[in-house]
Amino acid sequence: MDTNPPQNDAVLPKVLLLRPSALTLLPLAARLRAHFHLLDPLDSSEPAQSFLSLRCRSVRALLCLFTPFVPVNAGTLDLLPSLELIVVSSAGLEHVDLPYCRRRGIAVANASAAFCEDGADYAVAMLIDVMRRVSHGDRFVRAGSWPVQREFPLGFKLGGKRVGIVGLGSIGSKTAKRLVSFGCSIAYNSRKEKPHVPYPYYANVRDLAANSDILVLCCALTEGTRHIVGKDVMSALGKGGVIINVGRGALVDEKELVRRLVRGEIGGAGLDVFEKEPKVPDELLALDNVVLSPHRAVMTPESLEAVQELIIGNLRAFFSNEPLRSLVQHE
Amino acid sequence: MDTNPPQNDAVLPKVLLLRPSALTLLPLAARLRAHFHLLDPLDSSEPAQSFLSLRCRSVRALLCLFTPFVPVNAGTLDLLPSLELIVVSSAGLEHVDLPYCRRRGIAVANASAAFCEDGADYAVAMLIDVMRRVSHGDRFVRAGSWPVQREFPLGFKLGGKRVGIVGLGSIGSKTAKRLVSFGCSIAYNSRKEKPHVPYPYYANVRDLAANSDILVLCCALTEGTRHIVGKDVMSALGKGGVIINVGRGALVDEKELVRRLVRGEIGGAGLDVFEKEPKVPDELLALDNVVLSPHRAVMTPESLEAVQELIIGNLRAFFSNEPLRSLVQHE
Repeated sequence: MDTNPPQNDAVLPKVLLLRPSALTLLPLAARLRAHFHLLDPLDSSEPAQSFLSLRCRSVRALLCLFTPFVPVNAGTLDLLPSLELIVVSSAGLEHVDLPYCRRRGIAVANASAAFCEDGADYAVAMLIDVMRRVSHGDRFVRAGSWPVQREFPLGFKLGGKRVGIVGLGSIGSKTAKRLVSFGCSIAYNSRKEKPHVPYPYYANVRDLAANSDILVLCCALTEGTRHIVGKDVMSALGKGGVIINVGRGALVDEKELVRRLVRGEIGGAGLDVFEKEPKVPDELLALDNVVLSPHRAVMTPESLEAVQELIIGNLRAFFSNEPLRSLVQHE
Repeated sequence: MDTNPPQNDAVLPKVLLLRPSALTLLPLAARLRAHFHLLDPLDSSEPAQSFLSLRCRSVRALLCLFTPFVPVNAGTLDLLPSLELIVVSSAGLEHVDLPYCRRRGIAVANASAAFCEDGADYAVAMLIDVMRRVSHGDRFVRAGSWPVQREFPLGFKLGGKRVGIVGLGSIGSKTAKRLVSFGCSIAYNSRKEKPHVPYPYYANVRDLAANSDILVLCCALTEGTRHIVGKDVMSALGKGGVIINVGRGALVDEKELVRRLVRGEIGGAGLDVFEKEPKVPDELLALDNVVLSPHRAVMTPESLEAVQELIIGNLRAFFSNEPLRSLVQHE
């Protein structure tokens, strides 16, 4: 740990850093320290609370790294009376008290822009994989079954399938663009109908599901979207329906999904996220119509580099009174 | 087997059927018999050769089903002096003596049009899978490794990658169109430069490989393309390069590919086809940077229905003196 800040810290703008203790920071920290005076409670022997209340009263910018593990709630924010900006390293913001930020006029910048292409690529990959049985086929070959059984079950064609996208944000809209090139038709649900979007809008997910062969979940997790895909939506999607989740595990009533997959009451699923990850329901491990993924949808070396650029870009823009590169619009 | 042809056979146009003996034909045969008088050597007690030479002298149309297993060579074609059309149920034509057909003016219709979308979808699926480690991640989760090891290796971003397509036919051009939507840049090799194609052309595969991160093989297998991806091309593609093969196994020098994969001299591979299918080299079964598939790229229930439509459409067009629906252009 670097407890001796470089001498020029006094003239650099202060940035408070919140991060999980297990996180190794080295390359990013070095890049940040070239521009900012980092205040990191984990570098201090003081308890975090007193570090915040004693040393961070004048701090205007907060950086949260790997933020789903570090809640940014009213209790924390009340200790930071000068705060004007929160920069998070994730696309999701379920750990940030957004209504509180709106009330206090604290701007929030997230990292969707760095992650959305990888997320969309991965959503499409899992969708084709479930439909065409790619990883199932890989298991079949690796197990030596091909020369013995010869016949491997056919999957389904992508072209002409109706894909319902839940959450047409940056990942959702890029997923839609890709799927159009496969001949899929697109419809979507989001909090509000979006202007200038060519796809049909459904005001609720149940109706979207009733008119879709495949649902792709890429909305934020909020109290309003927790278990947004439950019994009703799964019934509407029907026996042959497929669910792809690159959002958050708790968007889906996982118990209900597992029950339906086991009973053949839903066609298949591609899941990058789970309600209690890294715990994955045991029943899923034996099913051939699911593709399971260790929360890697948005993660590539390229996206991790891009998120660092974006974090530094947002902080520099803020301290130069320039527009933020990825301001989250409060609704 | 239906050895009693329906009474109206006398007035229906004759179509000679060549098929592997193991093939169960029922739904297609019933549909064909509504329009054509099928002559099937496997329905006869005569040896195939005498069936052809005695009963098929006036046959103008030949239908080959699951044709890679039924060679249509000069020996067979010499027995059919009236032949004007060969319809095959596959995209590949390596089992048909095309130079002989050209000399005799026999038209050939293939089934690419029914298969190309599924083939392109699958090529893209395997490409993303290798790059983003989708089926590797699925194995990791199924093995219960996620809660234990936590860290799963990152894959690579698709956007910005240079994809070289070997064979810009119907599957290749549809693969290119899809990959553009992921932000990949496309270049291609084929026998000749294609007019009206926006992608850079390389006259040889070695140069294409030297300028690509990923090679996608979807050309026909001919004497000219056997082992078109050998040592030189793999060296040019380089250590991080990826090979996707949805064409035929023998397009690649498989021994060389396996050797390089094992030694880490090539980045990864997605293989739907193999030199001695269904035999897959044992060394591949343990590698995490390969995706293995039991020759299913073009196969969905939808494509199998489409190929039946296309076969019947071609035969009906021929006997009505209308343009064939999928005439193969001799070069």
